[in-house]
Amino acid sequence: MGYLLRGLRRPNIICSFLFMLCLLLFCTNMAWAGEHTIASDPTGEHTFALDFRGVDMSESFGWVLLTGFTILFMQVGFIFLGGLLQAKNVLSYMTHCFLATTLGALIYFVAGFALMFGGFEFLGKHLGGGNAFIGWSGFLLLGDSYDVRTIMMFLFQAVIATFIGSIIAGAVAERMKLGAYVISFFFIYTIIYPLYGHWVWGEGWLWNLPFGSGVRDFAGSGVVHAIGGTLAFVGALFLGPRIGKFSKDGTPGFFPGHNVGYMVIGTVLLAFGWLGYDAGSTLAAGDLRASVVAANTFIAGAMGAVTVLYYSYLKTGAADIGEACNGFLAGLVAISAPCAYVAPWAAVTIGLLGAIVYMTNLWFVEEKLKVDDPLGAVSVHGANGLWGLLAIGIFADGSYGGVSGLITGNGGQLLSQFIACIVALAWAGGLGSLMFFILKNTIGIRVSERVESEGLDVNIHGSPCYRLQTGAEAPLGAEIEGAAEDTEGQKNTEILEAAFAKDAKREKIYSEKLGIWITAKPKETEK
Amino acid sequence: MGYLLRGLRRPNIICSFLFMLCLLLFCTNMAWAGEHTIASDPTGEHTFALDFRGVDMSESFGWVLLTGFTILFMQVGFIFLGGLLQAKNVLSYMTHCFLATTLGALIYFVAGFALMFGGFEFLGKHLGGGNAFIGWSGFLLLGDSYDVRTIMMFLFQAVIATFIGSIIAGAVAERMKLGAYVISFFFIYTIIYPLYGHWVWGEGWLWNLPFGSGVRDFAGSGVVHAIGGTLAFVGALFLGPRIGKFSKDGTPGFFPGHNVGYMVIGTVLLAFGWLGYDAGSTLAAGDLRASVVAANTFIAGAMGAVTVLYYSYLKTGAADIGEACNGFLAGLVAISAPCAYVAPWAAVTIGLLGAIVYMTNLWFVEEKLKVDDPLGAVSVHGANGLWGLLAIGIFADGSYGGVSGLITGNGGQLLSQFIACIVALAWAGGLGSLMFFILKNTIGIRVSERVESEGLDVNIHGSPCYRLQTGAEAPLGAEIEGAAEDTEGQKNTEILEAAFAKDAKREKIYSEKLGIWITAKPKETEK
Amino acid sequence: MGYLLRGLRRPNIICSFLFMLCLLLFCTNMAWAGEHTIASDPTGEHTFALDFRGVDMSESFGWVLLTGFTILFMQVGFIFLGGLLQAKNVLSYMTHCFLATTLGALIYFVAGFALMFGGFEFLGKHLGGGNAFIGWSGFLLLGDSYDVRTIMMFLFQAVIATFIGSIIAGAVAERMKLGAYVISFFFIYTIIYPLYGHWVWGEGWLWNLPFGSGVRDFAGSGVVHAIGGTLAFVGALFLGPRIGKFSKDGTPGFFPGHNVGYMVIGTVLLAFGWLGYDAGSTLAAGDLRASVVAANTFIAGAMGAVTVLYYSYLKTGAADIGEACNGFLAGLVAISAPCAYVAPWAAVTIGLLGAIVYMTNLWFVEEKLKVDDPLGAVSVHGANGLWGLLAIGIFADGSYGGVSGLITGNGGQLLSQFIACIVALAWAGGLGSLMFFILKNTIGIRVSERVESEGLDVNIHGSPCYRLQTGAEAPLGAEIEGAAEDTEGQKNTEILEAAFAKDAKREKIYSEKLGIWITAKPKETEK
Repeated sequence: MGYLLRGLRRPNIICSFLFMLCLLLFCTNMAWAGEHTIASDPTGEHTFALDFRGVDMSESFGWVLLTGFTILFMQVGFIFLGGLLQAKNVLSYMTHCFLATTLGALIYFVAGFALMFGGFEFLGKHLGGGNAFIGWSGFLLLGDSYDVRTIMMFLFQAVIATFIGSIIAGAVAERMKLGAYVISFFFIYTIIYPLYGHWVWGEGWLWNLPFGSGVRDFAGSGVVHAIGGTLAFVGALFLGPRIGKFSKDGTPGFFPGHNVGYMVIGTVLLAFGWLGYDAGSTLAAGDLRASVVAANTFIAGAMGAVTVLYYSYLKTGAADIGEACNGFLAGLVAISAPCAYVAPWAAVTIGLLGAIVYMTNLWFVEEKLKVDDPLGAVSVHGANGLWGLLAIGIFADGSYGGVSGLITGNGGQLLSQFIACIVALAWAGGLGSLMFFILKNTIGIRVSERVESEGLDVNIHGSPCYRLQTGAEAPLGAEIEGAAEDTEGQKNTEILEAAFAKDAKREKIYSEKLGIWITAKPKETEK
Repeated sequence: MGYLLRGLRRPNIICSFLFMLCLLLFCTNMAWAGEHTIASDPTGEHTFALDFRGVDMSESFGWVLLTGFTILFMQVGFIFLGGLLQAKNVLSYMTHCFLATTLGALIYFVAGFALMFGGFEFLGKHLGGGNAFIGWSGFLLLGDSYDVRTIMMFLFQAVIATFIGSIIAGAVAERMKLGAYVISFFFIYTIIYPLYGHWVWGEGWLWNLPFGSGVRDFAGSGVVHAIGGTLAFVGALFLGPRIGKFSKDGTPGFFPGHNVGYMVIGTVLLAFGWLGYDAGSTLAAGDLRASVVAANTFIAGAMGAVTVLYYSYLKTGAADIGEACNGFLAGLVAISAPCAYVAPWAAVTIGLLGAIVYMTNLWFVEEKLKVDDPLGAVSVHGANGLWGLLAIGIFADGSYGGVSGLITGNGGQLLSQFIACIVALAWAGGLGSLMFFILKNTIGIRVSERVESEGLDVNIHGSPCYRLQTGAEAPLGAEIEGAAEDTEGQKNTEILEAAFAKDAKREKIYSEKLGIWITAKPKETEK
Repeated sequence: MGYLLRGLRRPNIICSFLFMLCLLLFCTNMAWAGEHTIASDPTGEHTFALDFRGVDMSESFGWVLLTGFTILFMQVGFIFLGGLLQAKNVLSYMTHCFLATTLGALIYFVAGFALMFGGFEFLGKHLGGGNAFIGWSGFLLLGDSYDVRTIMMFLFQAVIATFIGSIIAGAVAERMKLGAYVISFFFIYTIIYPLYGHWVWGEGWLWNLPFGSGVRDFAGSGVVHAIGGTLAFVGALFLGPRIGKFSKDGTPGFFPGHNVGYMVIGTVLLAFGWLGYDAGSTLAAGDLRASVVAANTFIAGAMGAVTVLYYSYLKTGAADIGEACNGFLAGLVAISAPCAYVAPWAAVTIGLLGAIVYMTNLWFVEEKLKVDDPLGAVSVHGANGLWGLLAIGIFADGSYGGVSGLITGNGGQLLSQFIACIVALAWAGGLGSLMFFILKNTIGIRVSERVESEGLDVNIHGSPCYRLQTGAEAPLGAEIEGAAEDTEGQKNTEILEAAFAKDAKREKIYSEKLGIWITAKPKETEK
C-alpha cells in the first residue's frame, strides 16, 4: 500500500487515475453478473448456426477468428522491427508495442469498440444505437453485446486497433516518455481512431458519400495506416529529432540498426499476418474473393520490396536489405485498401508505385521537413495509407462490390477516396496535434538528454535488453563489471568503491541502479 | 557400431534401453502393415464427411487442425522465453523445449494418447476400451485407431502434451542433467500427465463428479498448467537453487536475462498460439462460442500484463517489461479453464487476479520457500493453473454447457473445481516427488559445479549458443582463440600448446573438445 | 535518372534488363484493364459457392488460403536457419531468402505458374491450354485466369515455389555473388522448377506413368525438395568450398554458427508451417485425410530429430542440438511426399530412416565429394527429397487414393517413384549445371577473396547485421570507430584521416562507404 501511495505522488498521476477508473468500472460490472438474459449458447445446441445463413455461419466464425489470430501475430512482426533501432532503446520500443497489444486492446474493449461499431450490423446481429457520426453501444461487451457474433467482430477489430499504437511507436522511438505514450492511448483509442473508423467501417458518413460507391477501405490503408501514420508524424514533429540526427547545417545523419536481421524477420512475419488480415477482412468465409485479396496482397508487397532493393542497389551499389523490408511493408500498406477491388496486374503496379511513394516521402520528411522518424513509420504507413485509399479510385475494375475506378472511366470513386484522405489528415493531424500539444505542456513528452544518451532501457525499464556475457566463457563478474563502468564512467566507479568498502567481505555486490551483480576488484589492479 | 557400444557403457544406459525398446516396437509393427482393414478413405470419396453430421464434419477438421498447428507454434514462444536465462545456458533450455516437442510427442504417440483417451468418443467415433480411471486403446495409432477422426484428436492432443516438458524446463533450467530430464519424460508422458488428463478430458471420474457439472477445464488450466507447474515446482525443489541464487542469509539474488527482448517476442508469440489453443478447444467449428473464448483469452492476458507492468512501475519506478510478460502469461493461464464459461468482464477480472496470484506466488516461492525457479514457471503455470480451475467455480454464468458458478448463486461447481485442484497437487506433487527422488538417488539430476559455472551449453551440447565474432570485422581465428582460452583457462592452453607442437605446420587446429578452430599463436607473444 | 544510368553501366546489366522487361510487361497490361469480362464476383452474391459443390467450396477456400499463409510463414523459419552461418554473412543469406520470397514469387506470377499449371483443372475450373510436358495458360493471371479458383491455386503454389530459392541459399551461402543468384532465378522459376512441377503436380507425363498409380508426391518431397536440393548441390559444386573449409590434405573443417539458438527457433517455426503445408496439400477441406497427413508429418519430423540428437550424443558425448534440428527437417522433408499415403507407424519409420539418410549423405558430400554445403541443404532437402519419393513406393498402404507400395505386395509404384527420382536428378542436375556453367563463365558466381574474408554483409549490403553497441553503455562514436577500423584496416584509416583533415570542425563524419558515423580521433592518441 505504501508503494501504491508513493506511486500516486508521482507526476503521472493522471495515468494512475484513469487506470483506477477502469478498475472501478470492472468492479461495478461484477454486480450485474446474474442478470445476463442473452445467453449466447445456453444448451450447447448452437442456435445461431441454425438460425442464420445455416452452415455458412460456422465457417465464417472459423475464418474470421483464425485470420484474427494472425492479425494479433503481426505484433510480433512490429516488435522485430526494433532491430533497426539502437540496442540501448530496444526494450523501450518493444514495450510500446507491448502496451499497444495489451493496454490499447483493453481501452478499445472498454469504450473504443462501442464508439466505432455501435449501430452496425454483422451476420444478422444489429448492435444497438449509433448514427452516421458516432456509435454508443457495446461498452465492455455488456448486456446485448454479450453475443457470439458481436464478440467475434470485437476480437477481429480489437487486434487491428492495436496497430495504431505500434505504428506511432516507430516514429516516436528512442526519445518519448513512457507516461506520455500511455496517456495518449486514452485519447487515441477512445476518440481519434474509433470515430474515423466509425465513419468508414462503421458505415458512417464517409462510407455513404454520394460519389462512386462511397469511401471504401477494404483492410485499413486509411482507417489504420493513414490515421496511424499521421499520428506518428505529429508525434515525431512535436518530439523533435533525436540528439545527433541532424548536423548544425541540417544534414540528416543515420543511426545504424543494432540488428538488421530482426528487420528481415519482422517484415516476413508481418507479410504472413498481413495475408490473414486482408483476406480475413471479407468477414465471411463464403466470400471467395478472399483468394484474389490474398494473392494481390502478396505480390504487391513483393513488388514493393524488389523495387526498393533494386533502386538502392542502383543508387548506392549496395543492396540495402533494411530499406527493401520497408519497401515490402510499403507495398503491403498500399494494397490494404484496394486488395479486393483490383486485378493482380494492378496490385503489382500499386506495389511498385507504393515503393516510390515510400522513397519519395522518406526523402521529403527527412530532408525537407527535418522530421526524425526512426523506423520510417510516416512514409511506410502514412504516405502509403493515403496512396492505398486513392488507388481504389484509380484501379478498381468493377468486379467486386460494384466499385469502379478511373480505369473503367468513372471518376466518382476517386473523389470519395480523396475526401477520405483529406478527412484522415485533418482529423488525425488536428486532434493529434492538440493532444501532443497538451501533453508537451503538462507532463512533457520527451525524456531528458541524459536518459536519451544513456538509453531509455536502463533508465525507464531498469535493464538493458542485452547482457554482455554472451557465450559460456565469460566469468559472470568480469564481463558485467566492464559493462557497469562503461555505463556510468567515472562516477559509477566511485559508487562501487564506496559500496565495496562498506561491504568488504562479499565478493559481489548487487547494484540496484544497474540491476546487475558487480564483482569486487582490488584497487591496485585497476591502475 | 563402436560408437553405439561406447554409448551403452555410459551411465544413462536406462535412457538408451528405453529408446531401443521404442525402436523395437516400431519394427514389430511393420509386420502388421498389410492387415489394416479400416482404411480411412480408400476411394477418395470422403465417406465420413457424408456419414456424420454432414458438412459440419469437414469444417471441424479444418478448425481443429489449424488451431492445432498454432498450438505446436507455441513451442517457439516457449523457446524464446529462454531470453531471461544466462547466455551460457540458452541451448540447454532450448534443447529441453525441443525434446518436449519431439520426444515428448513420440512417447505420447506410443502410449500417452491411448492411456488418456481410450474409451473416449469424438465426432461419432468411439475409441476402444477405457474406464473412469484409465484408457487402453490407441497405442501407436494402430488398428482401430488408424482413423481420420481419432488421428485428428491425437494431433490436437499431442501438441498440447508437449507443453508439460516446456513448463518444467523453465523451472529446472541452468542446472539439470540432460539425461535425467529425458528419462523423466518416460514417467511424465505415460503416467502423470495422461492419467490426470483422462480423469478430466477423457471424461473420467473427475469429469463426472456429482457437484455442479463435474470438473470442467476448457483449455487446460488444470490438466496442462497446474500439472506442469506442480511438476516444475517439485523439480526445482529437488534440484536446489543455482549457485549464487541465495546469499548466506537467504536473500534471493537475481540472474539478469541475456536478452530481455526475446521474452517480449516469446510472450506475444505465445499469446497468438493461445488464442488458437483456447478457441480450438471447442473441437468443433459449429460451436460458435469460440468467439467468446478467443476474446476472453485475449483480454484476460492483456489485463494480466498491464497489471504487472503498472505494479512494477509503482513499486520500483521502472516499468519492468520482463515481469509484465509473465503477467501476460499468467492471465492467459488463468483464463484457459474458464474461457468458455464466463463473460468478458469476468475474463478481465480473472486476468487481473491472475496477475496478483502470480506476483504473490513469486514472492512466496522465492522468499519463503527458497525455491529457485528461473523463469517463474511455478507462479505462471502452477499457481495460475489452480486459480483458473477455481475461477470457473466463481465466474461461470451458466450461458455455456450449463456450468454455473458462485455469481449465479451455485456453490457446487466450485467444490468440483476445488477437488480438481487438490487432486492435481496430490497426484503431480506425489508422483513427481517420487520420480525426482528416484532419479536423484540413481543417475543424479544435477550437473557438477564446474559445469554449472562454465555453462551447460559448452559442456553438454558442445557449443555455446552465441559466438563472439559478431559483425564482419572479426578475423576468424583471433576471436575464437580468445573464446577457447576463456572457456577452459590454463588447462586448455596446455592442450593447445601440445597440439601445436605436434602439428606445427598448420596454422589452425580443430579442437574436438570445443568444436571450433583454434589459431596457432607463437609462444612468445603470449607472454 | 543519373543513378539509373550509372546502374545500367554495371556488369550485371542482364539483371537490369530482365527486370525492366518485367516492368514493361506490367505497363502493357495496364492497357487491357477495361476488358476483363470474367468478373469473379460482380454482385457480391458468391456465385461459385452455389455453382460448384455447394458449401464445400467456401470451406476449401478458407482451408487452402490459411494453410497457404503458413507456407509463406515458413520463410521466416528459413531465415532463422542463418544462425548456423558466420555473423559476417547473415544479411547475405537472409537477403537470398528474402529475394526468393519476393522476386521468386513475382517471376512465378509472370510466367512460372502458367508453365506449371496451364491445362490443369481444380475445383471445376479448367485453366486454358497445356499438354503433358508444358502448360501455357495463366501468365500474369490475366484474362481467363482472373478467377477466384485459379488465383487461390496461384497463391498456394506461389508460396511453395519460393522455397526453391531458399533451399539453394543454404548451400551457396557465404560466397555467392548476389547478381548471379538473382539471374539464376530467371531460369529456375521459368524453366527448371515449373516444368518438373508440371510433369508431376500439373498431371503431366510423370503423373500418368503406367506403373502403379503413376508418380505421386503429395507435398513436394520431389517437386520442391529434390529439385531444390539438386540445384543446391550443383551450385555448391560450381562455387567450390569456402576459404578454409578444407585443409590441404582435404580434411573438412567447421565454421561454427554465430547463433545456434536461431537454428532451434527456425526449425520449430518450419515444423509449424510444414503441418500447414502438408495438410493444406489436400487442396480441399472435405478431404478428411488431412488429419492423418498432419499427424504423420509431425511424428516423422520428431523421430528424425530424436534420432540425430541421440546419435550425436552417442558418438561425441555432446547432444548436438544444431544437428538435431537438421534431423527434424530431414524427417519433415522425407514425409512430405508420402504423408497422405502411409500409416503413422510408417511415418515414424520414414522419419527414422530420413535421419540416417541425412547423416550418411552429410558425410558423403563433405568427406567424399568434398563439396561445401554450409547449412546441409543438399542432405536435408536433396537426399531426403529422393528418399521421400521412394518411401511412397515402399510404405503406401492403399488406404488413400489407391496408392499401394511394397508393403502391400505391389512393386509398380516403387518403379514410378524411382523414375521420378532419376528424372529429378537428371533434369535439375543437367539444366542446373548448364546454368551455373554459363553464369560462372560470364558474370561470375563467386565473390572475391577479399569480400569473402571481410564478409558479404558489409561489402554487398553496406552494413553488418549486428552492431557492437549492444547495451546502453556504448558511447556511439567510440564503438563504431573500432568497427570501421576492423573492417577496412590500414587503407580505411587513411581515408578517414583525409576526411577529417578536410572537415576538421565536425566531431563525426558519415562514411558513405561503410554506412556509419565515425568519430574523429586526434592523431596522437592513435599512436
